Amino acid sequence: MKKQKKLSRGVAVVGAGMSNFGMFKNKDSKDLFVDAFNEMISSVDKGVDPNEIEALYLGNFTNDFFVHQGHWGPIISDLVGIAPKPSTRTEGACASSALAFREGVFAIASGFYDMVLVGGVEEMSKCTTEEVAEGLALGTYPYEGNVGFTFPGVFGVLATAYFAKYGASHEDLMNITIKSHETAPLNPKAQIKLTIRDIMRNKMVKAEKQGKPVPQWEDEKAFLRDPAANPVVAWPMKLFDCCPISDGASCMLLVAEDIARNFTDDPLYVKGIGQGSGRGLHAAGDLTSMEATKNAAHEAYNMSGLTPADIQFSEVHDCFSMAELLHIEDLGFFKPGEGYKAIAEGLTKRDGSKPINTSGGLKCKGHPVGATGVGQLIEVWKQLRNEAGKRQIPNKDLRIGAAHNLGGTGGTCTFTILERR
Amino acid sequence: MKKQKKLSRGVAVVGAGMSNFGMFKNKDSKDLFVDAFNEMISSVDKGVDPNEIEALYLGNFTNDFFVHQGHWGPIISDLVGIAPKPSTRTEGACASSALAFREGVFAIASGFYDMVLVGGVEEMSKCTTEEVAEGLALGTYPYEGNVGFTFPGVFGVLATAYFAKYGASHEDLMNITIKSHETAPLNPKAQIKLTIRDIMRNKMVKAEKQGKPVPQWEDEKAFLRDPAANPVVAWPMKLFDCCPISDGASCMLLVAEDIARNFTDDPLYVKGIGQGSGRGLHAAGDLTSMEATKNAAHEAYNMSGLTPADIQFSEVHDCFSMAELLHIEDLGFFKPGEGYKAIAEGLTKRDGSKPINTSGGLKCKGHPVGATGVGQLIEVWKQLRNEAGKRQIPNKDLRIGAAHNLGGTGGTCTFTILERR
Repeated sequence: MKKQKKLSRGVAVVGAGMSNFGMFKNKDSKDLFVDAFNEMISSVDKGVDPNEIEALYLGNFTNDFFVHQGHWGPIISDLVGIAPKPSTRTEGACASSALAFREGVFAIASGFYDMVLVGGVEEMSKCTTEEVAEGLALGTYPYEGNVGFTFPGVFGVLATAYFAKYGASHEDLMNITIKSHETAPLNPKAQIKLTIRDIMRNKMVKAEKQGKPVPQWEDEKAFLRDPAANPVVAWPMKLFDCCPISDGASCMLLVAEDIARNFTDDPLYVKGIGQGSGRGLHAAGDLTSMEATKNAAHEAYNMSGLTPADIQFSEVHDCFSMAELLHIEDLGFFKPGEGYKAIAEGLTKRDGSKPINTSGGLKCKGHPVGATGVGQLIEVWKQLRNEAGKRQIPNKDLRIGAAHNLGGTGGTCTFTILERR
Repeated sequence: MKKQKKLSRGVAVVGAGMSNFGMFKNKDSKDLFVDAFNEMISSVDKGVDPNEIEALYLGNFTNDFFVHQGHWGPIISDLVGIAPKPSTRTEGACASSALAFREGVFAIASGFYDMVLVGGVEEMSKCTTEEVAEGLALGTYPYEGNVGFTFPGVFGVLATAYFAKYGASHEDLMNITIKSHETAPLNPKAQIKLTIRDIMRNKMVKAEKQGKPVPQWEDEKAFLRDPAANPVVAWPMKLFDCCPISDGASCMLLVAEDIARNFTDDPLYVKGIGQGSGRGLHAAGDLTSMEATKNAAHEAYNMSGLTPADIQFSEVHDCFSMAELLHIEDLGFFKPGEGYKAIAEGLTKRDGSKPINTSGGLKCKGHPVGATGVGQLIEVWKQLRNEAGKRQIPNKDLRIGAAHNLGGTGGTCTFTILERR
């Protein structure tokens, strides 16, 4: 990349909304998107006329598979009154809506549109767990899914490689899990609002009620070590290393920078929009790093003129605990092989020097895959605008936050930096 | 649309390539895209270093369904050496790669990239016909596919409405079919390279060889009227009203206008990039018109400052003969209810005043759905650059050509205008 990446025209975020994330037997993709859209409309401080929205970009991974319905762009554009204006679906597996965000930015920066809705949706919980695993495996490389790899299997391999190279162990991944469960109860939209201690207590109470032997664990790590409580999914990935199956929707309203203050006195500005693609495990020289994340980070830092030290906090794609560890190193927050030590020291906690996944992460907030990328950016929106309530990052003048979104086994990555001025 | 749509920075096409379109038992999506990519590279008059390509936009409708593999962006970016740079899949059913083209234009116009590859791919022929029908129905509205509509059924309804309103009949649709079959044999990439008379002759020869009664038809229309030769698929859509099942890939190289002449002395310039979305049959006040096409046309004419009369020729999405008729009216080439008369007069033939589908159209060139949008633009590239060989539009100084691409039952439409200066 020889020259600095830049946009001809700045782009700002002036509204954001998401549905609850969870498993909803009585809500479909349309219901969920309406929840997100309505919240987005109410979030615009000075109000907005939805008729002014000029186009929709919608991320969805594979509702084709999950609910046997494709072509979601026009369905959602009809639903929220954007039709006959354009709607475009973007897909990059679990990074689908981060791509929608980026295309919305390009569409405005190009001068063609002034106001664009970006978002995502996915509806997974109507499937069995086996069907979800099969659907998600559509996002792996043919050299992976077709030879039997599922996602927990892939991240198990990456964890094994990391452990071997740097001397870390599953005990280190537990710190990530415990941290996500600590902050998620403070997020009203999160799917799993229980700390690990809450879960331990619930299990004890249940055993007592059922007249069974009451299990005893001395602390969270003892619980996570117990194979009855935390069984292996794909070694060394255990149940509590894996995010849940989720339904949900998210959206944001983007406008040209020069009109942003017509809608709010507190817009966020798009500072960096990096993206990369990867070649899958078969081509990776080093399984402890992802080239797609590195390229995404490189593009976003290049465009923004910022360094990893400038990022005050970040959402980081933690479909598995191991993913969070890999990415905080690839994003430059910590040196290779140092991430797990930083986590153990508490640096990535909400009150640490580099808070990661204050939302609860995919692990606890939930991971309706097509909705996740914009969902992560909504946490950045909340934190930067000091609207994160009880999970607000303490004692900081927050100006720069970021979100990293991963699709597939490293196939598609984005890194998006937002700024409050 | 209050103001004129425009791009901050012009975009040009400097290379184009496509695979053969057809049913290929021994080629998969990767093989087909490599064919398209290699032809594109050789098409760049002054040469190009593929390492300079900064990003990929790839249209694909639902290889998720057709070949049980999703997330094609990184697979293709790996294949042609673009990884770890970004790849983004776009989806708008059968308009998927026209969306890729448009996002590539935005990405360059935004100032972020100078050179982007756009294209599409689809692999359908490994499926049974029933599976293809099921896969394509994923692109209908839930209120259509889920209640039993297939694509021939939808266009049958639209034809019935048109016939009732304007007094046309299936005899008028035959003119479209005959025209497509006349020009396709002149296109070396076309799937069906036979005129209707060729097909009639083949059937007669075959019957004679088999010692069966030799069928006799006085002309093409008599053949198309014969239910044995042209059976009903979904009334009044008959076999020869429907495009075939196809595999194929297509791509184009886009660059910023200011560097276009580094690559060729004969670039094409992006003059208009319209898009629209539709609400499906249930919301259509009038079944003889599609609001998505109208919005796409409106955007493209608005941006280009051109009128329908300025478009010298166009590819028009003819998944069914009826689709071509609807669209040439919605695009403003002919008045509502006048299109079928213009066709009967020969105005849309290659030597007429408004040539439509000189490639043979989806009907004969083939319709590998994700590859179609860019595939149509390749015909515009060929014609404008006087490289269409035996099917070159005669006796015209061609400067302005266009392509119209439809996804779903009116869910997504694009209209793209290219200019030779």
